[in-house]
Amino acid sequence: MFDVIAFDADDTLWHNEVLYTETQDKFKELLSDYLSADAVEEALYRTEKQNLHHYGYGIKSFALSMIETAIEVSDGQISGQAIQAVIGLAKDMLNAPVQLLDGVHGVITALSKSYQLMVITKGDLLNQESKVSQSGLAHCFTHIEVVSEKTKDTYQALLTKHCISPRRFLMVGNSLRSDVLPVLAIGGQAAYIPYHTTWAHEIVVNPDQGGKVYHELEHIGQVPALVRRLSQT
Amino acid sequence: MFDVIAFDADDTLWHNEVLYTETQDKFKELLSDYLSADAVEEALYRTEKQNLHHYGYGIKSFALSMIETAIEVSDGQISGQAIQAVIGLAKDMLNAPVQLLDGVHGVITALSKSYQLMVITKGDLLNQESKVSQSGLAHCFTHIEVVSEKTKDTYQALLTKHCISPRRFLMVGNSLRSDVLPVLAIGGQAAYIPYHTTWAHEIVVNPDQGGKVYHELEHIGQVPALVRRLSQT
Repeated sequence: MFDVIAFDADDTLWHNEVLYTETQDKFKELLSDYLSADAVEEALYRTEKQNLHHYGYGIKSFALSMIETAIEVSDGQISGQAIQAVIGLAKDMLNAPVQLLDGVHGVITALSKSYQLMVITKGDLLNQESKVSQSGLAHCFTHIEVVSEKTKDTYQALLTKHCISPRRFLMVGNSLRSDVLPVLAIGGQAAYIPYHTTWAHEIVVNPDQGGKVYHELEHIGQVPALVRRLSQT
Repeated sequence: MFDVIAFDADDTLWHNEVLYTETQDKFKELLSDYLSADAVEEALYRTEKQNLHHYGYGIKSFALSMIETAIEVSDGQISGQAIQAVIGLAKDMLNAPVQLLDGVHGVITALSKSYQLMVITKGDLLNQESKVSQSGLAHCFTHIEVVSEKTKDTYQALLTKHCISPRRFLMVGNSLRSDVLPVLAIGGQAAYIPYHTTWAHEIVVNPDQGGKVYHELEHIGQVPALVRRLSQT
């Protein structure tokens, strides 16, 4: 049934959003003299969205947006020490150990015996490569593709590049917007495994699936059974 | 003779280092109350080198290192406005129009009629993709590979991935360290076209070529003749 099964990385293979949430909490604390936690969160999200087309995704972009927000929120009064603390938070994120989600190691190792597996992820190239390498799973994947955005066109280009027929392609991920809808749109199959928290930017309200259906799972441990089931139909 | 000719991007296809130099001049000016221009340059380079394994290459990394240097050099006294100005400099760099080097358009267009051409470049994924797209030359390249580091292993992996024999591979670039020596080391051929200024990090003193020879050219306009000459031997 499938020639290739591809996995999103952040919050599909390993915990990621929790790192951002924890850092954001420390950032709000740092700015608590100037603004309420909620207002800081709102200002940061606004800055991140404005900067997305300049910076793209990833921790360095997040760091630059935090610094810009700190200056804005404090009306330029923020101290050099506080900015240095923000840079320290970003470096801590970059150096945080990779924590696999439950079941990932077993599922990926087992599937890699029967299928070609790929990682398709957004974010910063160096940081994602380093996480794949730290995960201990690099040998299970035939390709690691770090892309700047996950659109229909991105998936189409990747499938063409690797000579994969969409009908024989399954994408597994935690974002409807990035991992599921664009894959359905090009005729692929998608398994959606929600993570307990999702970055506001990745949330889709009333997704248009174009009449196509994705498979919602509770955890990655259910992927092998889904693959077996789809292969029998 | 060659199945694939690959080109470095920054300072091989388009001007890049000059953007960094101009930004650095403005940065030194911004810190002139605290330290001499030379001392700022030295401090910035030290910070960049220390941060390379955290951040990798590219403009966002440069921006974060400038901010860190500004805090250090000013002993934390730098103002929020000045940091905002540094962020503005980085955004200007990200949005700077792509300026092709002389002769690039004609040479790439002509070679693409007879050869598979690739771009192999370091730096930030989104920024490099955007420059390729702005260059008007995207259609001439069969693959754009953005990598986090250009070592012997990187080239070996790319050649394996694209089923290219090293003997039938020519790399063209402006950095002995990144474009020439690692390619010679895996048995490929390399053309070295120095740019008028090179970032200190890319300079190699007394390069060890392992007895192998690269081809030094003055400008990209000489590449087609080199390719013809090598194809006849």
